[in-house]
Amino acid sequence: MADMQLPGEPLRIGLLLFPGFQALDAFGPLDCINVLSRTEGITLSLLSSTLDPVSTTCPEYPGSVGQEILPTHTYAAPPPLDVLLVPGGRGSRGSGPTVLAAIKFIKDTYPRLKYVITVCTGSGLAARAGVLDGKRATTNKMAWKEMMALGPEVQWVSRARWVTDGNIWTSSGVSAGIDVTLAWIGSVFGEEKAKRIADEIEYTRHDDPSCDPFAELYGL
Amino acid sequence: MADMQLPGEPLRIGLLLFPGFQALDAFGPLDCINVLSRTEGITLSLLSSTLDPVSTTCPEYPGSVGQEILPTHTYAAPPPLDVLLVPGGRGSRGSGPTVLAAIKFIKDTYPRLKYVITVCTGSGLAARAGVLDGKRATTNKMAWKEMMALGPEVQWVSRARWVTDGNIWTSSGVSAGIDVTLAWIGSVFGEEKAKRIADEIEYTRHDDPSCDPFAELYGL
Repeated sequence: MADMQLPGEPLRIGLLLFPGFQALDAFGPLDCINVLSRTEGITLSLLSSTLDPVSTTCPEYPGSVGQEILPTHTYAAPPPLDVLLVPGGRGSRGSGPTVLAAIKFIKDTYPRLKYVITVCTGSGLAARAGVLDGKRATTNKMAWKEMMALGPEVQWVSRARWVTDGNIWTSSGVSAGIDVTLAWIGSVFGEEKAKRIADEIEYTRHDDPSCDPFAELYGL
Repeated sequence: MADMQLPGEPLRIGLLLFPGFQALDAFGPLDCINVLSRTEGITLSLLSSTLDPVSTTCPEYPGSVGQEILPTHTYAAPPPLDVLLVPGGRGSRGSGPTVLAAIKFIKDTYPRLKYVITVCTGSGLAARAGVLDGKRATTNKMAWKEMMALGPEVQWVSRARWVTDGNIWTSSGVSAGIDVTLAWIGSVFGEEKAKRIADEIEYTRHDDPSCDPFAELYGL
């Protein structure tokens, strides 16, 4: 395969963290990456506006609970990256400074990346960064209309667990991040590796990108 | 239902964190709890030996990557808890001080809990704490023999996505934690609530506890 990762070259992966990111949007893909890194050369950076802990908690839901994750790098001093993972969540909405900083980082970093992988409303951030313009992409099905409005130049695909266009992989909501990450691992490191990780985490994959029970559920 | 949660009483949930916990063991259930807490009264504590960040990284795999999570409480000064969530992972093995502290915390806390939920090899910690003795339980299917040896008095169920016995819910490996948590939410808060969370996180559930493709895969 043309894009199989060459042995000996560590793949440098970064994930964006912003307040109000959805925990599983990040930790579904990250768990797959963690297991992958036991046998493959991987570096991982968690990037945010500052090095302060980043909470999943959403101010829109007073009294709701969350968790705090430590970033490793700031947007101002990022390491070189080959892959950028963009989670979604309530915190990806609006135009607060942490959202605008994430969008700017995607825009600035994209030209040097080998791959972008978005999960859920993370595709809204990528759309606002302009990197999805003219490309096929998908997103969270419950937030469909809101996301479409953020990317009028994007060819949104409503019935898809995930969509690949060039070097950009976009997935449907939350747990679809596990499926797109395993599919991406299959493409870059080989399908046998992806299957071994899925079996190790006892995950029943959606392995057909066009099979999307949630598009129907949400009337798309 | 006898164990439906009464409105007005927040349910106090705690999750154990120890070095080398598996990210998805914790963040699958936590994502469900985070979404649940937007509409239900929930408190959440993340407990560990100290308040230092806890890493998912496994020293057994040099060069592997991980993430650091901030605990909210120590085992020495825990809040009152109704529910204890116990993840697994490489770090749940062996008899290092952080593992023994987690086992002691489970043993000391269990008599005052309404529910225990274990994910993956977290059932090995519960078994070593003695709280599974004489009870039906399941665990990670790849680590089956190792876990069985930790609980000779446990009635291990090899073909199960999850098992309920009294107030103890044990699940199979890693992503099975999402299924057991949604099933537990269905039992305590009503099935409609569990379904809404699964739909919101676009998760295709295993909703039959006896359906276990991974038992077969690992020859059990």
